Amino acid sequence: MADAILAFNAGSSSIKFSLFEAGGAGRLALASRGKLEERETRQYFVAHDPNDNVLTEETWRGQSFLPLVEKVIGWAERHLGADRLLAAGHRVVHGGADHSKPERVTPELLAALDRLTPLAPLHEPHNLAPIRAIAVARPELPQVACFDTAFHRTMPVAATRFALPRSYEDEGVRRYGFHGLSYEYLSRRLRELAPDLAKGRVIAAHLGNGASLCAMRDGRSIDTTMGFTPLDGLMMGTRCGNLDPGVVLYLEQRRGLSAKEVEDLLYRKSGLLGVSGIAGDMRTLLASSDPRAREAIELFVFHIAREIGALTSSLGGLDGLVFSAGIGEHAPEIRAMVCEKLGWLGVALDPQANAHNAPLIGAPSSRVAVRVIPTDEEAMIGRHTLDLIRPAAAAASAERKTRCPATRPPD
Amino acid sequence: MADAILAFNAGSSSIKFSLFEAGGAGRLALASRGKLEERETRQYFVAHDPNDNVLTEETWRGQSFLPLVEKVIGWAERHLGADRLLAAGHRVVHGGADHSKPERVTPELLAALDRLTPLAPLHEPHNLAPIRAIAVARPELPQVACFDTAFHRTMPVAATRFALPRSYEDEGVRRYGFHGLSYEYLSRRLRELAPDLAKGRVIAAHLGNGASLCAMRDGRSIDTTMGFTPLDGLMMGTRCGNLDPGVVLYLEQRRGLSAKEVEDLLYRKSGLLGVSGIAGDMRTLLASSDPRAREAIELFVFHIAREIGALTSSLGGLDGLVFSAGIGEHAPEIRAMVCEKLGWLGVALDPQANAHNAPLIGAPSSRVAVRVIPTDEEAMIGRHTLDLIRPAAAAASAERKTRCPATRPPD
Repeated sequence: MADAILAFNAGSSSIKFSLFEAGGAGRLALASRGKLEERETRQYFVAHDPNDNVLTEETWRGQSFLPLVEKVIGWAERHLGADRLLAAGHRVVHGGADHSKPERVTPELLAALDRLTPLAPLHEPHNLAPIRAIAVARPELPQVACFDTAFHRTMPVAATRFALPRSYEDEGVRRYGFHGLSYEYLSRRLRELAPDLAKGRVIAAHLGNGASLCAMRDGRSIDTTMGFTPLDGLMMGTRCGNLDPGVVLYLEQRRGLSAKEVEDLLYRKSGLLGVSGIAGDMRTLLASSDPRAREAIELFVFHIAREIGALTSSLGGLDGLVFSAGIGEHAPEIRAMVCEKLGWLGVALDPQANAHNAPLIGAPSSRVAVRVIPTDEEAMIGRHTLDLIRPAAAAASAERKTRCPATRPPD
Repeated sequence: MADAILAFNAGSSSIKFSLFEAGGAGRLALASRGKLEERETRQYFVAHDPNDNVLTEETWRGQSFLPLVEKVIGWAERHLGADRLLAAGHRVVHGGADHSKPERVTPELLAALDRLTPLAPLHEPHNLAPIRAIAVARPELPQVACFDTAFHRTMPVAATRFALPRSYEDEGVRRYGFHGLSYEYLSRRLRELAPDLAKGRVIAAHLGNGASLCAMRDGRSIDTTMGFTPLDGLMMGTRCGNLDPGVVLYLEQRRGLSAKEVEDLLYRKSGLLGVSGIAGDMRTLLASSDPRAREAIELFVFHIAREIGALTSSLGGLDGLVFSAGIGEHAPEIRAMVCEKLGWLGVALDPQANAHNAPLIGAPSSRVAVRVIPTDEEAMIGRHTLDLIRPAAAAASAERKTRCPATRPPD
């Protein structure tokens, strides 16, 4: 009988999950990957095997997908057969100042994470909802929260500090950085694929609906583009990225917007969507002939190239560039536009390899290694969850065995 | 009889001025340089000759320095003797979307500039006050407003655009950039000093109480660190620079600060002052042995080096680096700390030359030319004012001469 882990990655309109089986020496093998999704008035569930063959597909009508999280667990247990579901792990975007490594979920932890919602209003409530649903439906199942902020805890103080009075830093107003589970996965994967490069100065570009960059030296984060919230840094699907704080004050003082309205504007109506007026989805913009779509793409690329310059300065030079996440893995045109602007750094693409989303897309002449590495946040969640729960479970089991005779009341 | 121009550069607690005499071929020669300053309950006035010898020094008690602007004009006229004071020119920090070159002051222009005060609350009211005072005291004296935003009008659209819905851009919410009079002066001066370098890719660092960077290609601005307001970009004496807009929302939604209180915090209590808890003045911090002073300095330098990387990416490489303004011209330690972080770009300092604030401070091995150029915003104000007023005055004078006989009523 093997142990298994369910890893959840919950967003606003879908919950991705991966089911892993734990082999010997702590190895994790993917057993299934799937998602729950809202599709207009229906709820959709699908699970694939590791080769992307559909194992199960179901549609429900008129129900939030949250209660369906329990159905995923039931499905997973049936799928596992004799194997034991050891725990559920979750991506939680913001760990705040107090939570910098994976933690076992308790009511106290949930309450503390709830208080961080204003720092990640687009993410934190959605991350916490399935944790709550499972806690009610399966109170005996251990759950683990894995924080996207954790990987960046190695940043030097200058990269974490805002130029604000110290009292604000003391209460937690600092640059945390996000996409940490993705960067941690990419860092480990790069160490397997190219151990020498992984020791050097590498920028990883997580370009999805959310987008950021991470500067890594010897595999550890030393700077990143996102800050206190997932709003800062690169332009994103619907988020503004870098913005003069004076704009927020202007919108409030001159335009009479409330803080809530500004939040809605900056998180949900800006970025690619705001500039194009068409869509926040890069695929739609790349397929569009509207000049505004092109302008939005050009602004997106401009800021990536600009911030790669900034992070290269933090690194003191650049040895490698890694593209990842939806756009980074699947949009050769965007990678080509970014790299075109980085010739001054010695970046040169192999157009053929780039067009095929190959793992190595740098030209032989490129002074900077350029790679595409598919990210896998769920694999990191599974890993952390197993590492946290299995020793505890083993210890508890050992303790039960040891203590049973002694604690059994004399009859 | 020569024409003369008075150039004013007004801040919150002092007004600097320069008196220029116009020679042949539009040349301007400095006749005097001075300032009005509040010193506790007294008002202080000093004027120097071009060799920094004191010409006049006076102190008044218990009066705002504003009415004294008129005294400066009176003093200038007496000092000029037979020469004619042609006009007064002024630095105005924000020209907004509609004012992109020097303009003759009218009541309509003043009203329009007043409406920009929320975009530069630390500057705009102080810039406009002496214009108003002179308009009342000397209504016949032509006045010219010179905008710090104007030099950046050559930036490509990607450098001016926020990732916000288009309607905000249409109403003027965009990146303007500031310190434009300083950068325009540095650009012209560099063209005189090193014409080949001036044609290349140069970053100018205006590091004073306010601080920003400007990326110039062939002497024209193509990117800068300040944005919609003079709050953005580098950390400054009391301003925060780059700040996750989510921090503003947090301060309002969770800490209950009003927009006005946030404005006060970000403009007046942050930057070097906020991080050190000691002072916003770099000289004080450099002289301090307090570790918090050192931390503030390190954060200041970290962000300069980081943003130089960003602007180098916008330029596609770097040929020259120019330090200017109070810190840039007079703080060798700061220049050394910044350049130390730019070795990856090929920047290398000559320690001796740097220690002496020499004009050329790059080592012979440096792949990037490194210079110190004292800036002179007043010279640019004088230049623009003369260029705008003299042709108009000459035309008017010619017209009077032509029209006099014809328009004289028959007697």
